[in-house]
Amino acid sequence: MASSYLSFDEWEDVYADRIEHLRRSAVRDLFAAISRPNVIGLSGGSPDISSLPLDEVAECTKRVVTENGLKSLQYGGSDGRIETRTMVAGMLAEDDIHVDPDEIIITGGSQQALDFMGRVFINPGDKIIVEGPSYLGALQAFSAYQPDVEVVPMDDEGMSMDALEETLKRLGPRGAKFIYTIPNFQNPAGVTMTLERRRRLLELAHEYHIQVIEDDPYGRLRFEGEHIPPLKSMDPNVIYLGTTSKIFAPGLRLAWCVAPKPVIAKINLCEQGASLCCSAFNQILAEQYFTRTDWKGTLEKSRAIYRSRRDAMISALEEFFPPEATWTHPQGGLFVYVTLPPYFDTEQMMSAALENGVAYVPGSNCFPNGEGKSSMRLAFSYEPEEKIREGVRRLSEVIADRMELYRAFLKAGALPEASSEGM
Amino acid sequence: MASSYLSFDEWEDVYADRIEHLRRSAVRDLFAAISRPNVIGLSGGSPDISSLPLDEVAECTKRVVTENGLKSLQYGGSDGRIETRTMVAGMLAEDDIHVDPDEIIITGGSQQALDFMGRVFINPGDKIIVEGPSYLGALQAFSAYQPDVEVVPMDDEGMSMDALEETLKRLGPRGAKFIYTIPNFQNPAGVTMTLERRRRLLELAHEYHIQVIEDDPYGRLRFEGEHIPPLKSMDPNVIYLGTTSKIFAPGLRLAWCVAPKPVIAKINLCEQGASLCCSAFNQILAEQYFTRTDWKGTLEKSRAIYRSRRDAMISALEEFFPPEATWTHPQGGLFVYVTLPPYFDTEQMMSAALENGVAYVPGSNCFPNGEGKSSMRLAFSYEPEEKIREGVRRLSEVIADRMELYRAFLKAGALPEASSEGM
Repeated sequence: MASSYLSFDEWEDVYADRIEHLRRSAVRDLFAAISRPNVIGLSGGSPDISSLPLDEVAECTKRVVTENGLKSLQYGGSDGRIETRTMVAGMLAEDDIHVDPDEIIITGGSQQALDFMGRVFINPGDKIIVEGPSYLGALQAFSAYQPDVEVVPMDDEGMSMDALEETLKRLGPRGAKFIYTIPNFQNPAGVTMTLERRRRLLELAHEYHIQVIEDDPYGRLRFEGEHIPPLKSMDPNVIYLGTTSKIFAPGLRLAWCVAPKPVIAKINLCEQGASLCCSAFNQILAEQYFTRTDWKGTLEKSRAIYRSRRDAMISALEEFFPPEATWTHPQGGLFVYVTLPPYFDTEQMMSAALENGVAYVPGSNCFPNGEGKSSMRLAFSYEPEEKIREGVRRLSEVIADRMELYRAFLKAGALPEASSEGM
Repeated sequence: MASSYLSFDEWEDVYADRIEHLRRSAVRDLFAAISRPNVIGLSGGSPDISSLPLDEVAECTKRVVTENGLKSLQYGGSDGRIETRTMVAGMLAEDDIHVDPDEIIITGGSQQALDFMGRVFINPGDKIIVEGPSYLGALQAFSAYQPDVEVVPMDDEGMSMDALEETLKRLGPRGAKFIYTIPNFQNPAGVTMTLERRRRLLELAHEYHIQVIEDDPYGRLRFEGEHIPPLKSMDPNVIYLGTTSKIFAPGLRLAWCVAPKPVIAKINLCEQGASLCCSAFNQILAEQYFTRTDWKGTLEKSRAIYRSRRDAMISALEEFFPPEATWTHPQGGLFVYVTLPPYFDTEQMMSAALENGVAYVPGSNCFPNGEGKSSMRLAFSYEPEEKIREGVRRLSEVIADRMELYRAFLKAGALPEASSEGM
């Protein structure tokens, strides 16, 4: 959209205030970056869908029309097809989440569900609580509603419960509209919240009467370690978001939000105004895929691929990255989160990295408040192993350059030792 | 969702203020009504899609996957596929709208585009201008952003330009964020804005520096009279909304918004936060349908069907409705708008109508301010001719009952002659 900034905008003073607050996403620029030839994309959160049985999917799509006829091409209800919601309820039950189809609403991807969370709960200036770092798309969705975002730090066991308690104490009962968390293979951190912390989170949320939103796109992408029960299975008040994007295909834009019925009624109102209903065609396609193909077998293959790619990324990081860098060790999902010395500014470094043929997500995109400058999200989901290795190698060159420069400055006395100035 | 109102909502005081302002749509309840057996649905705006060549559509869906493979199942850009936008640009050119694909963004149905219009332009309390009556879904979409809605009355030639000028004078230059209009076969009124008024609207919009949003879902559904050029073809500043819903299938949730590039950039930001991107699958399916089938031939069949159904509705109204009722004579589209004597309250009358086996949209749903109580929208698009006739007959019974009651009250001196009390 570069050209739009060149053309005179005679409506400049007509836009709503919220437009000023909308976070520009790196996602868009990253998509553009990836589509350049020769750039290795460690940036985007696109799942690997190469294991999908294309012939079977093609047959599914055809059956959507031949078996369901005009119904698949007509409008549907805002809550989603009862057949789809019943199927989702069955899938959730495997995870010990036992809900009625009426506690489920189908949304146009989890991104739309996140938008609805903002729409239903956030007045401008309201506090909300997120993990730091958090999913950049969620921060972007919420930003349209102008919240005041409180960030609770994470470690290898997930969100810090001590820090959360401190925040909740400071804000007081009902002092925030909700706590937004991705407990499994968090985006971008790649870490998983322990069972103990999940229990504590629910206790604290109950004590301070704060709504919990559990975003779980990656729960079925565990390739190592023990499954940990979702928050929703331990507390029916939790709002739970699930999606087909990482277990079937993002191209469907099909997800679900599970919530207490009064909340579902509010979301339904939002969905009426925001999109009327979800695509009936895509809902039926999902029904076909999840009932007529061996989707669990396909997912097993994807998990094996992710595991190899995670291994490739971790061993490349060990081989090429400087000892000053640290990173997470995900047991599932799509992402590794790398932290560099504090004098790095990964947003500034991005252009050099792209020139050197590799893309990542700067950590500052994953914080609402300018934190995360020296860190980055690396996705191991999309590129094959040899490209991951080469991408990490290319990135290490850019990092080594910066470190050398920093040391030279330091030696010349041009920088204080503990400088946090970005390079 | 009736049950949701029975269950205790412990989050009642946590919702955002805008939830209070969200219009509950009759749409949802109407969908529920239609799905009752024996109720003739003159309410919903569902197009007739019986002319769709299902075998060909099934082949198209299959080709989406076999010819495009994984691309159809992966994420795409927020602006929409360049192939889809180029195709849309070609379709628009047939209507003398000459734009670059970069001036087009693909949205999840026009409903999402309407939501984005609110999101981009409306601060709480901002004035916007709509026709009275107007599309209930647009009023609902805008309501999430808490505007102050000015209603400009219509007659058989569309929005009254004298009334518009009066409103604009009162509000002053830039006194409203936009004028929202459906110039062709308006929803719900069924009337079409004359060329003269279109020109005058653009003059006034220019003079008062107000954005114009032209919603044109029905433009290709003319079955009588001369085509009138869209506003967008006469003024590049107009924001134009088009959709596949009435020329292919609503089940795709696929539409487009055409706007000056700076506005497209803002909408793109909104789309990133609200839904990330549109379904790549559905975009490719639309490309397949509009390039590989005789969609214009199919549409010709649909128009012939709509014409017969319009004729069936008009002649049934002439046969069964009382002389005090008046109605519009659409030359295309899906709707006839009926006005009853002022003592009618069509919202109150709805339950009696449903009991008598017929559904419609009460006129008050098409106004933001309680107007339209004695009118109703009747859709001739969905039911076959004999059902339309029977539906109008059933409705006339309910109306006759009310009139008889009213006359009895009047005779007994229980009501003043010009009462506007609803019955």
